[in-house]
Amino acid sequence: MNQDYIQPNPWSIIEEGFDPEKVKSSESLFSIGNGAMGQRANFEEDFSGETFQGSYIAGVYYPDKTRVGWWKNGYPEYFAKVLNAPNWIGIKVFVNDQAFDLHQCKQIKHYRRELNMQEGWYQRSFTATMPNGVEIGINTTRFLSLDFDEIGAIKYQVTLLNQDAKIKLQPYLDSGITNEDSNWDDKFWNTTNSISNGSRAFIEAHTMKTNFETCTLMQAELHHNGNRVQPSTNIKEETFVGVEFEVDAKKNEELSLIKYGGYTASRNHKASELVDAANTVLDKASKMGFEALLQKQKEAWAAIWEMSDITIQGDVKAQQGIRFNIFQLNQTYLGTDSRLNIGPKGFTGEKYGGSTYWDTEAYCLPFYMATKNQIVARKLLKYRYNHLEKAIENAKKLGFTNGAALYPMVTMNGEECHNEWEITFEEIHRNGAIAFAIFNYYRYTGDYTYIPEMGLEVLIAISRFWHQRANFSKPKNKYVILGVTGPNEYENNINNNWYTNYLAKWCINYTIEQLQKVKDGYPVDYDRIIAQTKVTDAETELWSEVANNMYFPYSEKYEVFLQQDGFLDKDLVKVNDLDKNERPINQKWSWDRILRSPYIKQADTLQGFYIFEDHFNLEQLEKHFDFYEPFTVHESSLSPCVHSIQAAKLGRMEQAYKFYLRTSRLDLDDYNKEVEEGLHITSMAGTWMSIVEGFGGMRIVDDKLSFTPRIPDQWKGYSFKINFRDRIIKVSITDKDATFELMGNEEMSIRVNGKRVVLSPGKLATA
Amino acid sequence: MNQDYIQPNPWSIIEEGFDPEKVKSSESLFSIGNGAMGQRANFEEDFSGETFQGSYIAGVYYPDKTRVGWWKNGYPEYFAKVLNAPNWIGIKVFVNDQAFDLHQCKQIKHYRRELNMQEGWYQRSFTATMPNGVEIGINTTRFLSLDFDEIGAIKYQVTLLNQDAKIKLQPYLDSGITNEDSNWDDKFWNTTNSISNGSRAFIEAHTMKTNFETCTLMQAELHHNGNRVQPSTNIKEETFVGVEFEVDAKKNEELSLIKYGGYTASRNHKASELVDAANTVLDKASKMGFEALLQKQKEAWAAIWEMSDITIQGDVKAQQGIRFNIFQLNQTYLGTDSRLNIGPKGFTGEKYGGSTYWDTEAYCLPFYMATKNQIVARKLLKYRYNHLEKAIENAKKLGFTNGAALYPMVTMNGEECHNEWEITFEEIHRNGAIAFAIFNYYRYTGDYTYIPEMGLEVLIAISRFWHQRANFSKPKNKYVILGVTGPNEYENNINNNWYTNYLAKWCINYTIEQLQKVKDGYPVDYDRIIAQTKVTDAETELWSEVANNMYFPYSEKYEVFLQQDGFLDKDLVKVNDLDKNERPINQKWSWDRILRSPYIKQADTLQGFYIFEDHFNLEQLEKHFDFYEPFTVHESSLSPCVHSIQAAKLGRMEQAYKFYLRTSRLDLDDYNKEVEEGLHITSMAGTWMSIVEGFGGMRIVDDKLSFTPRIPDQWKGYSFKINFRDRIIKVSITDKDATFELMGNEEMSIRVNGKRVVLSPGKLATA
Repeated sequence: MNQDYIQPNPWSIIEEGFDPEKVKSSESLFSIGNGAMGQRANFEEDFSGETFQGSYIAGVYYPDKTRVGWWKNGYPEYFAKVLNAPNWIGIKVFVNDQAFDLHQCKQIKHYRRELNMQEGWYQRSFTATMPNGVEIGINTTRFLSLDFDEIGAIKYQVTLLNQDAKIKLQPYLDSGITNEDSNWDDKFWNTTNSISNGSRAFIEAHTMKTNFETCTLMQAELHHNGNRVQPSTNIKEETFVGVEFEVDAKKNEELSLIKYGGYTASRNHKASELVDAANTVLDKASKMGFEALLQKQKEAWAAIWEMSDITIQGDVKAQQGIRFNIFQLNQTYLGTDSRLNIGPKGFTGEKYGGSTYWDTEAYCLPFYMATKNQIVARKLLKYRYNHLEKAIENAKKLGFTNGAALYPMVTMNGEECHNEWEITFEEIHRNGAIAFAIFNYYRYTGDYTYIPEMGLEVLIAISRFWHQRANFSKPKNKYVILGVTGPNEYENNINNNWYTNYLAKWCINYTIEQLQKVKDGYPVDYDRIIAQTKVTDAETELWSEVANNMYFPYSEKYEVFLQQDGFLDKDLVKVNDLDKNERPINQKWSWDRILRSPYIKQADTLQGFYIFEDHFNLEQLEKHFDFYEPFTVHESSLSPCVHSIQAAKLGRMEQAYKFYLRTSRLDLDDYNKEVEEGLHITSMAGTWMSIVEGFGGMRIVDDKLSFTPRIPDQWKGYSFKINFRDRIIKVSITDKDATFELMGNEEMSIRVNGKRVVLSPGKLATA
Repeated sequence: MNQDYIQPNPWSIIEEGFDPEKVKSSESLFSIGNGAMGQRANFEEDFSGETFQGSYIAGVYYPDKTRVGWWKNGYPEYFAKVLNAPNWIGIKVFVNDQAFDLHQCKQIKHYRRELNMQEGWYQRSFTATMPNGVEIGINTTRFLSLDFDEIGAIKYQVTLLNQDAKIKLQPYLDSGITNEDSNWDDKFWNTTNSISNGSRAFIEAHTMKTNFETCTLMQAELHHNGNRVQPSTNIKEETFVGVEFEVDAKKNEELSLIKYGGYTASRNHKASELVDAANTVLDKASKMGFEALLQKQKEAWAAIWEMSDITIQGDVKAQQGIRFNIFQLNQTYLGTDSRLNIGPKGFTGEKYGGSTYWDTEAYCLPFYMATKNQIVARKLLKYRYNHLEKAIENAKKLGFTNGAALYPMVTMNGEECHNEWEITFEEIHRNGAIAFAIFNYYRYTGDYTYIPEMGLEVLIAISRFWHQRANFSKPKNKYVILGVTGPNEYENNINNNWYTNYLAKWCINYTIEQLQKVKDGYPVDYDRIIAQTKVTDAETELWSEVANNMYFPYSEKYEVFLQQDGFLDKDLVKVNDLDKNERPINQKWSWDRILRSPYIKQADTLQGFYIFEDHFNLEQLEKHFDFYEPFTVHESSLSPCVHSIQAAKLGRMEQAYKFYLRTSRLDLDDYNKEVEEGLHITSMAGTWMSIVEGFGGMRIVDDKLSFTPRIPDQWKGYSFKINFRDRIIKVSITDKDATFELMGNEEMSIRVNGKRVVLSPGKLATA
């Protein structure tokens, strides 16, 4: 049922054999990125088959004019789109003046792609017979440098296999590109300058409306049997520049083209100095040379893996899955720039506009806290702090007052850019996830300073929103929150979504606590914040009134909190009793049918039990899990991980393992039949949580690390590392025991299965 | 606050003085139509100011590619659009080779428009000084013939007022027109043939996709001081044809151009014979001549008014309002073609796609039953019968089975063409209105034959829908209908909308009754219907189970049925307590805020009390009216009439009168600031109901006409006529008494204020 063409391998993603039907899928799966830019695994040479071209520069977007059926007041004017940037990987190949195009070749043999995750490079090789009868071998290796994040490098090797021939190679840049995702066929890029000079070429282009200035850059060197060949000519058209090499090559001789390419952008340089900056980075890269640059790449990835690797013994598919997830997360976001965030598709496609969702706070933060450090995690929080003013403006547009903030559902620069009313206006729990991330950051890192410095202002604005968004219901004699969409987007405009109401109450109480704590501990910050926000005791009393009298729908019969007021009125047929042909329901059913069904897209009430786990006992968790999971269709990539963690906690390891495989190999095995569009980057952090929090049972309890290790039957053992408050702990778990190794200088105590264990530096502790 | 530039006049709509800002409004208000075609009151000559060009052919539409934000399964692929058809009214005027354009003129004097409703013509006259200094007088009269409904006529008179000059007149046809409402800038028309020959010209064009073939036709005659002038040349371009007259005219001489124009279409002729048909109708019209044609027009309108006029004494604005409503309804639909229906904007604009809504059954049917006859009313029902198969297909797309039908919310040919999920999929009460219209038709006309012949099949398919759409709620131990939008579109995806649930229950019970009645009285029809639908007793028992156990939300405290399950949880601030700056809320508030507010767009629970009035007593009506009206913002044109009728019934005449004025002068006074877009045709039938049912208190009780006459203080008297089962009764009401005059041969008895009154032909009966 799911695709199965990726070779199992612990460290590499490997495709063998050429299938034109798989080109778009593989373009997604073999994507590479370095946090500052990224690209789909498009071919360097021309390809007339089905392809989805994509090269992306972090933070460069286009506010595409929005498209709706009927306009609603409050809708944003635009939908930010990640932009397909000018192509720098292109290399046209002509053999005896015939353009090489895999789609036109016969007898494609030894076709192989490898994405080496350990070392951070991508390779493609094959032999093919061209229509003119020339048999040719191509082997191309490509990577985006982690050391110089404005540049990538390609080694493109061509060999004639059955005859001598004239070969022309044209490495080029092309800014005549389009977006697949464009609402009104607007032009997104405007080319202003193109240069081709010696072995280098540049295209300056800026995005329409947003005016991001960029310079796409390249340098090409050709070696023929080891000898440098000079370009025969320079190509310079308005949106297409490059250099051309022409060689009379003999059979079996090797032509090796090294191409450096990438982007400099006005986000990091003065707009007038982009070509200079491009020359500088090309100087650095070419001076170092391809092999040395690749060596640095391997070292950089080794350093990332040193901290973030998870090993799994006895299950190569699970091993490959988790490494693919960790690799892609690191390709997407490295935590070096607080202006950036983590788009649901990273640099692998255009869907979801490359924008920021609540996924970051709810799913990605724990991964970055534990595998990087608090500085990186704090950057993710700061991103939202920087957008506070815009979140206040956004709430104002919807009628909220007094500095209440509603963070956008989807954003590139802090402005909302989604417009379906049931999501944009009603999926307000995102505000809660942003507040919870502040709590979670402090709980994990112990760094309280973020709260007085930035976090408290965010919390106040969010609490103001919740206070105004609730209203008093006379019949219920409680405060209610009407007209929301919860994490389960298969219900819209519902009343009293338990998760949302619970978050709202928690947010208000947490904010009031932090107000007191900052007042006591950080009086200067406190005075600044009060002066700015004008929060008074009278106001917080009003908040408390709402929080303390919040309504929570509950079923006495089932002893569970209800997802929303009307949940039990539904026709409660479990997922297992549904005809399999009816699934996935989001492809088979009309929207109204989905909405009135009991089927849950992703954890909703259980999402609350996940983030507020310590508010409930195991029996309550079990009751809620047993009530809701059977109605859950897991049609969101964010669903299986939470359920995996909870199943593990309930000791249901078979189920936990099933959910784990689904989350970790979602893209490799293309569960949702859409991997062509790009990878599910943010849910990959959920995969990491499935192992560390699910199987490893890692929690923070009273400022201390705590573990409840479990292991699926299918595994011999697994290990992961955690950075907890600048101390590194390596955890290795087998079906017999769990071993902990502390890297650092000071002793520390942790809890394992509820018992205190003292870790000493350099000594293994087994529990 | 509302516009006030239309002169009060009992029979005419009059504008005096030229204001370029009012051109678009007046283009709507002075629209003319003859049921088969219609047009906005665009100028004949060129106009470079703001204008909204529109000429429409009944039943000719274009399936415009739909535009949505995010696609949902079940959405239709297209949205049918009424098409701006080729222009046939155009007359270019050149004076000393300068094109005449009011927008470029100085000193525009005596500008006057009149729409003479009594006689069915439209006139515009003015004098103006052109940039070249020539002062010119223009007087143009136009009408669309009721006798020959493929043709209209224009008399365009030009006089030079301050000097002699060379005048060129170019009457033309133009198919190079566009729609204002076009989602993707697609081309809607394809011109295939253009002819210009002597005094006649033709353009054959067909609509893209739908392939409606049309021929736009014209003939022009110019008289100079009473002498016929021959065309100087013929104009023939690809999408523009016409004839040109050139005259050296002296000051004060009169030039009079008669232009006949219109359309023949493949809906009524063979596609290959459209030009022949066009010549035939031009022969007829030109043989008769402008004045005789106009005389026939006056007679035809006199006949319409004879039956449908409502007179009001002592209140000229109210008189003008009701006549404008009756006039526009007759311009839009005359009941001669069961393929046609009544678009919300008629032939006055493009909004709402010119398509059919539930307005027809809920608002328009009573007007046509009472002012035309049962044949016309039956055509409106048959329209839906003809679409039954497509309604079944539509339901199937949404997952319903076994021949259940969901009629479209918006349609041109029976297919759904609206796509907002909350309307398309959820505003399902429309199905009930279609069933109720069948009941209402029989109640009023006494013609039961429609039910065995056609209606029962429709009822069965609708009952099947309701049966499947409801589900059993264990907590309520009743059947519920989840996820609907009621008539109040300011709540979406609500549960147990009382109106919808009540309609559903009624539909099922009514269908089961009719099954029995047809079985007993029309066994041949019954056998045919059973053979076709395969309805069994077992099936109808399942329906009954749902109908008999339907859930109706009710408040013990307020003693009212609740609009929906969650209504009382809302923040119940009454409309009068809202800041006036917040209104209209559909312009001031974001959609989520509207949805969670208690504000009601148009009668919802009260709509149920309107159509099922006899199911409830006066006390119940009063309780519900007093509960819901204070939350009603009347932001739908369909709202005031129902409330006017109910206020009258409750004896609250001041309120009833206020609602009456709002509904009757909605467009003339532009209450909603949108008359530029076109007129609110369907709600005009509601205005008629406000007088006849509201003030006149007309009902059908036990197969008999019944009246409870009332009169607003502002009026001296009013009168209307009713065709009840082919007997015409004229009702005249003053503040003293009510007088009834029966036209016909046989006696009949009616009820007045609950008492039996016998009407004898030709005698006045006063009660």
